[in-house]
Amino acid sequence: MIELDKTTIQGLFDMSAGLVASRMAYIAQAEGRVQSPPVTWLEFPQANGEAHVKSGHIAGTKGFVVKIATGFYDNAQRGQPSSNGMSLLFCTQTGQPLALLKDEGWLTDMRTGLGGALATHALARSGYSNVLIVGAGLQSQHQVRCLQHLAGERPLSFQIWARDINRGEAAAKSLREDGLDVEAVSDLQTAVARADAIITITPAKAPLIQADWVRPGTHITAIGADSPGKQELSADLVAQADLLVCDLAEQSLHEGEFQTAFASGKIKGDSLVALGHVLSNAHPGRPNNQAITIADLTGLAAQDAAVALTALSIMQPDTELTEAP
Amino acid sequence: MIELDKTTIQGLFDMSAGLVASRMAYIAQAEGRVQSPPVTWLEFPQANGEAHVKSGHIAGTKGFVVKIATGFYDNAQRGQPSSNGMSLLFCTQTGQPLALLKDEGWLTDMRTGLGGALATHALARSGYSNVLIVGAGLQSQHQVRCLQHLAGERPLSFQIWARDINRGEAAAKSLREDGLDVEAVSDLQTAVARADAIITITPAKAPLIQADWVRPGTHITAIGADSPGKQELSADLVAQADLLVCDLAEQSLHEGEFQTAFASGKIKGDSLVALGHVLSNAHPGRPNNQAITIADLTGLAAQDAAVALTALSIMQPDTELTEAP
Repeated sequence: MIELDKTTIQGLFDMSAGLVASRMAYIAQAEGRVQSPPVTWLEFPQANGEAHVKSGHIAGTKGFVVKIATGFYDNAQRGQPSSNGMSLLFCTQTGQPLALLKDEGWLTDMRTGLGGALATHALARSGYSNVLIVGAGLQSQHQVRCLQHLAGERPLSFQIWARDINRGEAAAKSLREDGLDVEAVSDLQTAVARADAIITITPAKAPLIQADWVRPGTHITAIGADSPGKQELSADLVAQADLLVCDLAEQSLHEGEFQTAFASGKIKGDSLVALGHVLSNAHPGRPNNQAITIADLTGLAAQDAAVALTALSIMQPDTELTEAP
Repeated sequence: MIELDKTTIQGLFDMSAGLVASRMAYIAQAEGRVQSPPVTWLEFPQANGEAHVKSGHIAGTKGFVVKIATGFYDNAQRGQPSSNGMSLLFCTQTGQPLALLKDEGWLTDMRTGLGGALATHALARSGYSNVLIVGAGLQSQHQVRCLQHLAGERPLSFQIWARDINRGEAAAKSLREDGLDVEAVSDLQTAVARADAIITITPAKAPLIQADWVRPGTHITAIGADSPGKQELSADLVAQADLLVCDLAEQSLHEGEFQTAFASGKIKGDSLVALGHVLSNAHPGRPNNQAITIADLTGLAAQDAAVALTALSIMQPDTELTEAP
């Protein structure tokens, strides 16, 4: 069994390979080629903590993944990170463990960044340039780095908004040091009005972005809402969008950004398009340059499998990730 | 994070400590102090394989467990073991990983042995001596070793029955080499009639033991049936028993030995007694020396947590397994 720690994984992870694997994961999910049992939850209220276990397998790949993620929110008081976790890969031919990835949750952050980039790049207008990131946590950096990587040579212009502009400034500074074009902004409504694409990554429980702030042609990727009660966009904005895309409808409608609009009857469940179908071109995606499009990403075990397989391939470069037919 | 491999765990595992922990686990389960989400299953039919993930936490202990177990039944053709697996322990105060136990499934075998011993010793007649093991797989050795350990100085007399007496002889020989009193037998009905206690550990799908074979005063611990369709005892035997004990009623009634008698209406679900209540003396257990008692064990995440905590305590002998209050 290969064992990799966080630093090794971070140093060697290939973002291009990760994007390829993540795209494959979304398409497999949309096409029904993913085995992904219900997520297991454990709760530790006395320590303000929780854990969940996701497992999954993309048909045709050599490994299935079991990912354990923990969130213990009093850790910050002790100067420790709240999030932790690891992924395990097992061989789908023999059941033997292939790899233990002690990534401390980094691969989850990375796959969230890769997913946001894939959705945003696929659904924004051709030639999109101004990208607004709503939220200045660690994930803001993943979103910026992954999307610029996907955009390739064409430089994007990023703005980061946070309630506390100092946090936005800190995130922007860190990214500028790597040559990225990023500035922090203090007025969310103004920033929304000038953005071609918006990525929201906050834990908000009330809408941050109102329907009449968003100009035609804008794409929004909503990532923050991942459990009941969370919401970043007004339900009217969701209801008025011309195209609603998601990674997994049952999650989006009950735990994701679309839960509020769905619960109030403003959208119908069967109106959602799977991101994988857009990425595979089975669905045309954005209908025109005036449409408002929204992608709601809640996270898939298939993405966890994709990044774990990507990390494993670092150590087994001559091993194909796919099984022999 | 402490990492232990199978050989290290086997060499250092303390059976007495394991029995204490396993008893604690059953009692906690019966008293509602165990957090144990539904088991996750993955299936790999093209490789004749399956995997399941169990997770659980016994309230008051410092670690929660995530156990991954695989069964790939074509491995034997390649000279590899069918079963594999590992357990992970995480801190319930911070979420950090405490231990990775690469036991390859050995701890599951051990906890099954410990559980069989606890149930049998608690429910057999005082002074029981003749113990029949039905099935000669690896688990037969765990059952014999754990029960003799629990019986302490008092030597028990074991018989092992298997369809193929050569397998029974092989198991008996291995155990005799460690000074245990074990013989293989070929006639199941005769062996049943003279046994004080019987432990069944086969994958049978039709009853091996008939109701009129069993003499008054016998205790039976049925372990083999752990999924729909499996059965080792006749439904009439189950229906006629004076006391039915189980580790977890919902499992016993739907996946365990009691499924057939329950489905046919021969027993009622509310007639089952939790093993933990017998072990804690909240229930008196065996009513008299003439009663036939049956315990059906299907396996608990709490037992997995108990043996993982026991293994961890090997490496942290000065660390209490229980949290500070």
